[in-house]
Amino acid sequence: MSQAAESDLVERLLDGEHRALARVITKIESRASGYRDIISDIHSHTGHASVVGVTGSPGAGKSTLVDKLAKFYRDRGETVGVIAVDPSSPYTGGAVLGDRIRMASNVGDMDVFFRSMSARGQLGGLSTATSDAVKALDAFGKDRIIIETVGAGQNEVDVVKTADTVVVLVQPGSGDDVQMLKAGILEIGDVFVVNKADMAGASRTVAELEEMIHLRDDPRANLDTGHHGHDAFDDDHGHGAEADTGGSDEAADADSEPPSWKPQVVETVATQGEGIETLVETLDDHYTYLTDSGELDEKARQRAAEEIRQLLRSDVGELLEQELDAQGGVDDFAASVVEKETDPYAVTEEVLEPLRDCLGDHDD
Amino acid sequence: MSQAAESDLVERLLDGEHRALARVITKIESRASGYRDIISDIHSHTGHASVVGVTGSPGAGKSTLVDKLAKFYRDRGETVGVIAVDPSSPYTGGAVLGDRIRMASNVGDMDVFFRSMSARGQLGGLSTATSDAVKALDAFGKDRIIIETVGAGQNEVDVVKTADTVVVLVQPGSGDDVQMLKAGILEIGDVFVVNKADMAGASRTVAELEEMIHLRDDPRANLDTGHHGHDAFDDDHGHGAEADTGGSDEAADADSEPPSWKPQVVETVATQGEGIETLVETLDDHYTYLTDSGELDEKARQRAAEEIRQLLRSDVGELLEQELDAQGGVDDFAASVVEKETDPYAVTEEVLEPLRDCLGDHDD
Repeated sequence: MSQAAESDLVERLLDGEHRALARVITKIESRASGYRDIISDIHSHTGHASVVGVTGSPGAGKSTLVDKLAKFYRDRGETVGVIAVDPSSPYTGGAVLGDRIRMASNVGDMDVFFRSMSARGQLGGLSTATSDAVKALDAFGKDRIIIETVGAGQNEVDVVKTADTVVVLVQPGSGDDVQMLKAGILEIGDVFVVNKADMAGASRTVAELEEMIHLRDDPRANLDTGHHGHDAFDDDHGHGAEADTGGSDEAADADSEPPSWKPQVVETVATQGEGIETLVETLDDHYTYLTDSGELDEKARQRAAEEIRQLLRSDVGELLEQELDAQGGVDDFAASVVEKETDPYAVTEEVLEPLRDCLGDHDD
Repeated sequence: MSQAAESDLVERLLDGEHRALARVITKIESRASGYRDIISDIHSHTGHASVVGVTGSPGAGKSTLVDKLAKFYRDRGETVGVIAVDPSSPYTGGAVLGDRIRMASNVGDMDVFFRSMSARGQLGGLSTATSDAVKALDAFGKDRIIIETVGAGQNEVDVVKTADTVVVLVQPGSGDDVQMLKAGILEIGDVFVVNKADMAGASRTVAELEEMIHLRDDPRANLDTGHHGHDAFDDDHGHGAEADTGGSDEAADADSEPPSWKPQVVETVATQGEGIETLVETLDDHYTYLTDSGELDEKARQRAAEEIRQLLRSDVGELLEQELDAQGGVDDFAASVVEKETDPYAVTEEVLEPLRDCLGDHDD
């Protein structure tokens, strides 16, 4: 594709042409030649949309919740883009194809632009691809972008961290979920949604989540015991732990106290649309907090740094493959390792020596 | 730690001292200074052990199965090492600490050396650390090494692929499991274990697995329709699909046909010890197949290549951080990206330019 054709594609995307948007995202997903220039071109047109990431284990009702969320935003006049990411599908791909059909039939509204993306074996690249797709939707002019991702592993964490607000969906009474939360998702959730709140065990799940949020915030309790209107569930704890920390309470009411966010727990029955309005209000509250506290800018900087690091890693990976080939190819090295003539650490030293020398020179 | 102390530690490990083994694995896990020299030193003493990887979703009974497997090997006079890896625990770590206690109490035998390892945020490094720990156990003289890992994401796949034989545990009637299998684990399973085979739905799960294995092997069916004694479940299919492929059947009985492995399904009730003997026989069969077919050597070469690539990636990551710092630090670049003065792709080009130049020189 010529550079002229690329800038024409960017023009059409910026003009709001859905087909151009779809083509750009396809290029992003497949790393088609020229996609980098496209992202570079649209980068300066981004920064308008707010981005919500939704994660949770299979069966928690993510798809339905995202549908209802998208519909709610549409009903109040905002444009919406959804990207469904499936990082756990390195081989087969297309696992979320059914979702696309679902979205089309339930919402039936072209202003909800829905796209699924799969890992395609490029793991580190998936969060980069997600960021790039978000940029395309943002530059296109979508007001709200929802990133839907499956599961609770590191890849999902990386993907969902590209959002401004992270929503973690929990199914009532599922022991697995609570364990997953303990294992890493709790740390990144801004809003927890107990979906299927009409199921038995829902109130216990809510209580467990609040307890976990309380424990998570405990280390900070000494530094920041200020209350900021986002502690609707705080009063229910009654453990007395915070009161016992003592000493710091006097400083808590100072006007200079920066705003902080305490993760919220919202109950929904997505299939019935129950709790969606409260969820949207909570998401709006979080976005207001992000803006007022300066955290939105800080997050943008962290995200940019992470994008740079990710791209560097990926590009250097290609450079390394070339270097390996120039030095005889990885297969010969591997054979020598199996024959015990050398070992992986020694090979690594050997291959990297020219890079070390050269970077050393550069630093002089 | 001095180089003399390191080689003393290696000596003691090779002499079969359990404390030295434990210290080496701790060094591997924490990437303590000098651990690379230790792995380089022990590398030439490896190649004796057979390595089984066990994966499956939480609650499928992995821990119990691994216990029974270890006990069975011990009872027939072999030494055993177990490494339990928890890649889904990037933040909290130590999630499998309970397992260590469990193993000690159930088996009560120091010849089953049990160690848990967590991700500690170094994702790519986890499979390297697992390989290194396997090498330590191998050089120590363990006959059988079991790698136990939780879940079914890409990280788990990477970890479990460091084994010679991959066992995938499935719980009867769990819809989630079948979905996970579809999403990537099916492709790498050599032996599937339907544990809790006394539960309702077990025979249906077995049938589903066999169907999936059949479909997986279908593309190969045209190339290799030979039968090699590992097709105990093959006759039950009766779909006629293989018979219909036609044309290639004549070549199938040629003596030159290389041996191939059809994934086996084994039913167990691990808590009762039922099916463990059959499982061990199947694992032994697979190891014999690996040896006879030459695939064991091929796997070793592939593993060595992957270890080299992984180490290169990780070391170059450090070099890149230094290069980023030398060029002003990632934070300044990120701020420029947020201000739309540049974009991540342009930054990446800029930072990598000296490396490209220098590697270009090297190749001349």
